[in-house]
Amino acid sequence: MAIRVVQIGLGPVGAAIARQVAARKGFQLVGGIDIDPAKADRDVGDVIGLGRSVRVRVSPDPAKALKAARAHVAVLCTGSTLASIMPQVEQILKARVAIVSTSEEMAYPTRRNLRLWNRIDGLAKRAKVAVLGTGINPGFVMDLLPLLLTTPCERVDAIVVNRVIDARARRLPFQQKIGAGLTPAQFKAQVEDGTVRHVGFAQSIQMLADAMGWRLDRVTEEVKPRLANETVASEFLAVDPGYVSGIVQDGVGFRKGAVKIRLHLEAYLGAPDSHDSILIEGSPRLSLTIPGGIHGDAGTASVIVNCIPRVLAARPGLRTMRDLPVPGFCGGS
Amino acid sequence: MAIRVVQIGLGPVGAAIARQVAARKGFQLVGGIDIDPAKADRDVGDVIGLGRSVRVRVSPDPAKALKAARAHVAVLCTGSTLASIMPQVEQILKARVAIVSTSEEMAYPTRRNLRLWNRIDGLAKRAKVAVLGTGINPGFVMDLLPLLLTTPCERVDAIVVNRVIDARARRLPFQQKIGAGLTPAQFKAQVEDGTVRHVGFAQSIQMLADAMGWRLDRVTEEVKPRLANETVASEFLAVDPGYVSGIVQDGVGFRKGAVKIRLHLEAYLGAPDSHDSILIEGSPRLSLTIPGGIHGDAGTASVIVNCIPRVLAARPGLRTMRDLPVPGFCGGS
Repeated sequence: MAIRVVQIGLGPVGAAIARQVAARKGFQLVGGIDIDPAKADRDVGDVIGLGRSVRVRVSPDPAKALKAARAHVAVLCTGSTLASIMPQVEQILKARVAIVSTSEEMAYPTRRNLRLWNRIDGLAKRAKVAVLGTGINPGFVMDLLPLLLTTPCERVDAIVVNRVIDARARRLPFQQKIGAGLTPAQFKAQVEDGTVRHVGFAQSIQMLADAMGWRLDRVTEEVKPRLANETVASEFLAVDPGYVSGIVQDGVGFRKGAVKIRLHLEAYLGAPDSHDSILIEGSPRLSLTIPGGIHGDAGTASVIVNCIPRVLAARPGLRTMRDLPVPGFCGGS
Repeated sequence: MAIRVVQIGLGPVGAAIARQVAARKGFQLVGGIDIDPAKADRDVGDVIGLGRSVRVRVSPDPAKALKAARAHVAVLCTGSTLASIMPQVEQILKARVAIVSTSEEMAYPTRRNLRLWNRIDGLAKRAKVAVLGTGINPGFVMDLLPLLLTTPCERVDAIVVNRVIDARARRLPFQQKIGAGLTPAQFKAQVEDGTVRHVGFAQSIQMLADAMGWRLDRVTEEVKPRLANETVASEFLAVDPGYVSGIVQDGVGFRKGAVKIRLHLEAYLGAPDSHDSILIEGSPRLSLTIPGGIHGDAGTASVIVNCIPRVLAARPGLRTMRDLPVPGFCGGS
């Protein structure tokens, strides 16, 4: 029997997930939810660009839609922070439906989020379903993959991850999230109010530190603008010289003054040599490179869909990628 | 409380595991077992080259030693095939002690081994302990790591793994297992009687096929000699031109005539550019390279030790790396 999935949030990533669910063996798209009035009452297949009707209309109300659709799982793609998605999480868990979410803060508990984390964990246990936050980053390339790469190590001294992304290939909201097109002053202001930045370093750092048994005494995050030297354009916007083409962000975890974890992200329009690389300093010293890198939007959609069967098989509660059996593509046959 | 470990089999890999257990936080080496009369009754620390006494003498008898040591887990490194380790597995499970083993055939069930696999699974469940076979290969670089790398994929068409090893840096039994020093005729004879070959391709291929949902209709294995062009020497032996310096082995899984999985191993004295690489053909197409490769002996020792806590936490039965939560270095703090 196919897994019945309701997609909540039909932005670019939510739509990509819904398209995979509709197309892939073992899954069935049984509902689509979005509060955008422009999407209301249209066929979900039309809204997500599937090229065919799925005979379900977009609804603004999760509670009703989940029940009507007899969903096994809700995929929640409406916000990065736990606070922002909390009302929807409560509605879904009240309907006793499992959740997989792209919410970056749901990828791993941090001290700052512990109260909301525990609240969701309790609600999920009461509803007897599992909940998981995942994606490419956080969820995979800066935490789960480096964690797995430490398996052949007798000793780990430090973990370093570099991710370089040519943001031209990414969705518009991502290009906005990295400040592309802003002046340096606008960039600074938007970093300060939190609208420009990659969310998830704190989660990835905490997962790695917990797994390694490191009690970090300091975690720093720094966001800097990358300025265009020449005009660089994407499908969505053009950036002239002197304007911001994207971000350079570092997250560093220290223990007793030493750098134990360093996550480095460069995401800007026109970045050359996109790649992901991981270095494990220890015995043995191991490094790994993924030329071209893993596409954050398409990759996140696949990670979400591939994790759905594992979430349905998991113990009730708010789980993390560290708790589940090794994920992988789900052939569904 | 430290995990109490008894090491069974004190060859090069067993000794490397025992040294890690003795040195690492969270583990305690409480026994060493070997049938070699030259090791009998000597201090285990002396036999494994630890540089200090561990105040336990090597014993030839698992049953007695496990009981005396009140072991939580036995690490079994005495053979590649399930048939060869069966008597010891039975003794250990009779003592209700969990097992982690380097036995290649224990890494994953194959049709050929299903009867013995099910027998061990049943004994483990009756003993209420978990059993795991793992290592670098099989166990990690040609199965678990490629499996994880498919997580960001919407579609997987084929999986290709290449492993190139300069065998000069490996233990003597490994150099013998790849036929180093033989004439081409001796090599052919030893491939035929099964003493020269890498064991584990069948297990890795089956794990990947099951995970992808591929029913393979044919699996082939081919072992060829690599001949030395010039004299090449390791710490243990020298190979003159025209003699065998190692193996080139291919394992291929087919489905409907198409290659779905290809594992390629080159392991010979003097191989240039040691590395591990993985290619996932699909959407997206992903590749990954580990320059230098992961050392098979040292890496296997670490994988074994790092998996011990997970095996103790696992459900009773004969488990695989696919069933357990994502492994990683165990900091033990």
